[in-house]
Amino acid sequence: VKICLAQLNYRIGDFAGNQQKILTAIQEARLAGAELIVFSELAICGYPPEDLLDYDWFIDACENAVAEISTQAQGITVVIGGIQRNPGKGRKLFNTAFVIQEGKVQVQHKTLLPTYDVFNELRYFEPANHYRLFEIGDIKFGVLICEDLWESFNDFTYSESALKELKKLQPDLLLNPAASPFHAGKDEVRIQVLTHAAEYLGVPVLNVNQLGAHTELIFDGSSIAVDVHGNLPCRMPDFKEALVYLDYQSRQIALSHPEKHLYQQTDGIDELYRALLFGIQEYFDKMGFRKAVLGSSGGIDSAVVQALATAALGAENVCALLMPSAFSSEGSVNDALLLSKNLRNVHHIIPIENGYEAIQQMLVSHFAGTVFGVAEENLQARIRGILLMAWSNKFGDILLNTSNKSEMAVGYSTLYGDMCGGLSVLGDVYKTRVYELAEHINRVQGNVIPVEILTKAPSAELRPGQKDIDSLPPYDVLDPLLTGYIEQRKSKRALIAAGFDADMVERIVNLVNRNEYKRFQAPPILRVSPKSFGGGRRMPLVARYD
Amino acid sequence: VKICLAQLNYRIGDFAGNQQKILTAIQEARLAGAELIVFSELAICGYPPEDLLDYDWFIDACENAVAEISTQAQGITVVIGGIQRNPGKGRKLFNTAFVIQEGKVQVQHKTLLPTYDVFNELRYFEPANHYRLFEIGDIKFGVLICEDLWESFNDFTYSESALKELKKLQPDLLLNPAASPFHAGKDEVRIQVLTHAAEYLGVPVLNVNQLGAHTELIFDGSSIAVDVHGNLPCRMPDFKEALVYLDYQSRQIALSHPEKHLYQQTDGIDELYRALLFGIQEYFDKMGFRKAVLGSSGGIDSAVVQALATAALGAENVCALLMPSAFSSEGSVNDALLLSKNLRNVHHIIPIENGYEAIQQMLVSHFAGTVFGVAEENLQARIRGILLMAWSNKFGDILLNTSNKSEMAVGYSTLYGDMCGGLSVLGDVYKTRVYELAEHINRVQGNVIPVEILTKAPSAELRPGQKDIDSLPPYDVLDPLLTGYIEQRKSKRALIAAGFDADMVERIVNLVNRNEYKRFQAPPILRVSPKSFGGGRRMPLVARYD
Repeated sequence: VKICLAQLNYRIGDFAGNQQKILTAIQEARLAGAELIVFSELAICGYPPEDLLDYDWFIDACENAVAEISTQAQGITVVIGGIQRNPGKGRKLFNTAFVIQEGKVQVQHKTLLPTYDVFNELRYFEPANHYRLFEIGDIKFGVLICEDLWESFNDFTYSESALKELKKLQPDLLLNPAASPFHAGKDEVRIQVLTHAAEYLGVPVLNVNQLGAHTELIFDGSSIAVDVHGNLPCRMPDFKEALVYLDYQSRQIALSHPEKHLYQQTDGIDELYRALLFGIQEYFDKMGFRKAVLGSSGGIDSAVVQALATAALGAENVCALLMPSAFSSEGSVNDALLLSKNLRNVHHIIPIENGYEAIQQMLVSHFAGTVFGVAEENLQARIRGILLMAWSNKFGDILLNTSNKSEMAVGYSTLYGDMCGGLSVLGDVYKTRVYELAEHINRVQGNVIPVEILTKAPSAELRPGQKDIDSLPPYDVLDPLLTGYIEQRKSKRALIAAGFDADMVERIVNLVNRNEYKRFQAPPILRVSPKSFGGGRRMPLVARYD
Repeated sequence: VKICLAQLNYRIGDFAGNQQKILTAIQEARLAGAELIVFSELAICGYPPEDLLDYDWFIDACENAVAEISTQAQGITVVIGGIQRNPGKGRKLFNTAFVIQEGKVQVQHKTLLPTYDVFNELRYFEPANHYRLFEIGDIKFGVLICEDLWESFNDFTYSESALKELKKLQPDLLLNPAASPFHAGKDEVRIQVLTHAAEYLGVPVLNVNQLGAHTELIFDGSSIAVDVHGNLPCRMPDFKEALVYLDYQSRQIALSHPEKHLYQQTDGIDELYRALLFGIQEYFDKMGFRKAVLGSSGGIDSAVVQALATAALGAENVCALLMPSAFSSEGSVNDALLLSKNLRNVHHIIPIENGYEAIQQMLVSHFAGTVFGVAEENLQARIRGILLMAWSNKFGDILLNTSNKSEMAVGYSTLYGDMCGGLSVLGDVYKTRVYELAEHINRVQGNVIPVEILTKAPSAELRPGQKDIDSLPPYDVLDPLLTGYIEQRKSKRALIAAGFDADMVERIVNLVNRNEYKRFQAPPILRVSPKSFGGGRRMPLVARYD
């Protein structure tokens, strides 16, 4: 039996567009001789639809799309993710795999409903209470959706087991429509999860993951087929749509066209680089935007964002505003100019001095007797924010935020200043990793980032001679500490036991905790780690803890 | 048996402070002759702790507090909400009621774990799998936590039933520690829920609700005891701590001191008024802030926020900045001045003209050939935002946001401009309700809001002669339409069927959808309705739907 794995990019809520794409793939697969085509989880409506699921019209549209696909899909079995209403007690909906055969629609609901980090599925869905196999020729296949295979791969073990239920039915093959978001290193975990399922059931497992980015979440595709021996006869490309054909016979699977195999092994920094490019492209494409603007300070963060945006959107679609103040070094302006020249971006220099002076004058009588401090530092960052947003409003360019995860963590950023933006590109990338990205960019884009930007000491340049290191530990100490507290959720005591200086732990952890209020109002952040700021990390703002 | 209901205000994560407050109440209750004292859900750590529950030190601290309370509470039975680790499969924690008697600790876990709107309990907790009764003298009492009584009072019906399990055990009394957040009209639903439980079990139900506001959520207290006939022998005050004593005998309950009964029936607008005052007070108190600043435009929204803040924080702790532009009418400035005078608030006039001109000049060559538009309108709002934030940074005053729910819904607000602020006071109050609040304020505070502010046509005053009604339907049409779409989750078709003009429905619904990106970066909003913007309404930002 020839099987098509359809790794496609959907838009949340775009039923007409998604349906068209699905029907086109079905037609192509049928023409290629496939008898079965598998789409990803919630392909019909896109994942995650969040509270659109509370609207009846949204569920009606899902149902209509399933009906339409079942009418049009003849001569091929279609397995596709969507939504079904729950007529019984419990949550109102099921997260459902529809199995469509010659106009007949059968279903398998999802059992394990991830509700942690960025996932909220128990907010909407009732778990499955029934398991079954489906037939194609003499093959009996089961369908378990995404998390159903992850029963023991989180920091807790589910009490239900869909795999155990399915094993009782003795399938010949397992299909696994999924919507599993990217983070660095996720592929390895997925391979473990799928291999576990294949070995447990003694059958091949075909995983089809969603492609596409939705707000914070990047779905990388990277769908995988695993055979009973834990081999990977099929690895689909990441960040790219693809239809791949497999031949199944007697619990063995093989690529129909090995020569077209598109997967390429890449190292971690290249994967991160391509994930961020894809995240930027998807945000602009799906929001209907074309051009980006950003503040170019001559520092490493804005340089990396500018180079990423240029690679993602094209040099002609990126505009850099250089907005020096009295505290900006001449070097910074020159470095920023050289960067824009290297990247061939439109750029403009708008010194902020006049605006800064005018607004200071408006406040001078009120601030009389006070000394230059945070208010004046932030004023500069906020004037830059105003200029960038005025530019965005006037020309329709979307402002890219350039804050990195280290400064988002400790609050070394100005709310409504450098925290402005429609999308945060580096908000989940620690500063040390930003440097690695810069070096990678210079390798693949050809030394576009001037060496001075890579080598000078990081500074916000908001007062004379300011350096990050005056008030923060060096980033090669800070970032592991932050990783311990944020990603690994270690206590202060555990961090000190791990060798970090006790005073530093106290000070940094308190900075992280105290700055929840800033992150509450941060732009959406492209998520590339297992624990990003945003919807996946919900800390109380009004609280007293340390 | 004399029973003390302890309706107290906790801080999330403040184990030392909460424990001290709990032990003091236990001591007082024991001295008053009580044999049983009941605290609210998660009293030990405060509700909702959110992802602090992912930190081991947090759970350790909960356990230590329970151990400490059990050591100190002699001669009285203590029922108190906290956290217990789950040693088995499933989520790592239980939401637990601890029953402490002479050093012995027994538990009842929570079964129905609300995971909708602002609730995320299935993110952390495994449901109860065991039910039991506890004894005090010859009374056998059960404990079910908050949502456990709500099995049929949401827009879905839970498939589990803690009440059914408890009924099998034939209790004499039911205790219901709760953390049920306020919204207008919530009291009536709670009475239905408790009455249902009392009638179903044939026993009195004693509910103890958390008091206090945490970020967006306001817990009003308003604890209630219901007898088997559905009477309410005890209603505790709202927005206030209290210990109330009841006498229980043979399934009958009565207040020990009826003369001290503190509950006062109030009408809806007064309840809303007091909820907002309490929300402001709690935010400032729990964050350790004292003084507020806000932009006073002479419009109704800022007038109402200023009057609320004055009542909540004291006239001396509220500072109004009047920041007229060339488009501000003379009337607006005079109205704002009179308001500050009436409220006895410090106020300053800072015309924005010079800053606006300076920043326009910085952009003039770039914007050459374009006409005055959204960029210039927003520039004014953002200069005001900058001034307010500079004030906040300089003097430590916290900026109160003055946007109302109607404009938050349709996006008639400037991101990083009038959307700035540490706390949004009116972000869950529609414009028509803001007028009712203004009238109420004038009744209870004595005509502090000038009549001109109440009667003039709403305007953002960002261009000459601008009026809200030029681009929006009148608020008495808009607000019911928004309520239909947001609170009642009606489709466009249903709204048209309900009598709204089809073009208007199309335009307004699309405005609401298109402006998710602004609300993504909004300040925390005091929640006073069943469906507020913020954590309780999660709509995808990158999506295509209408």
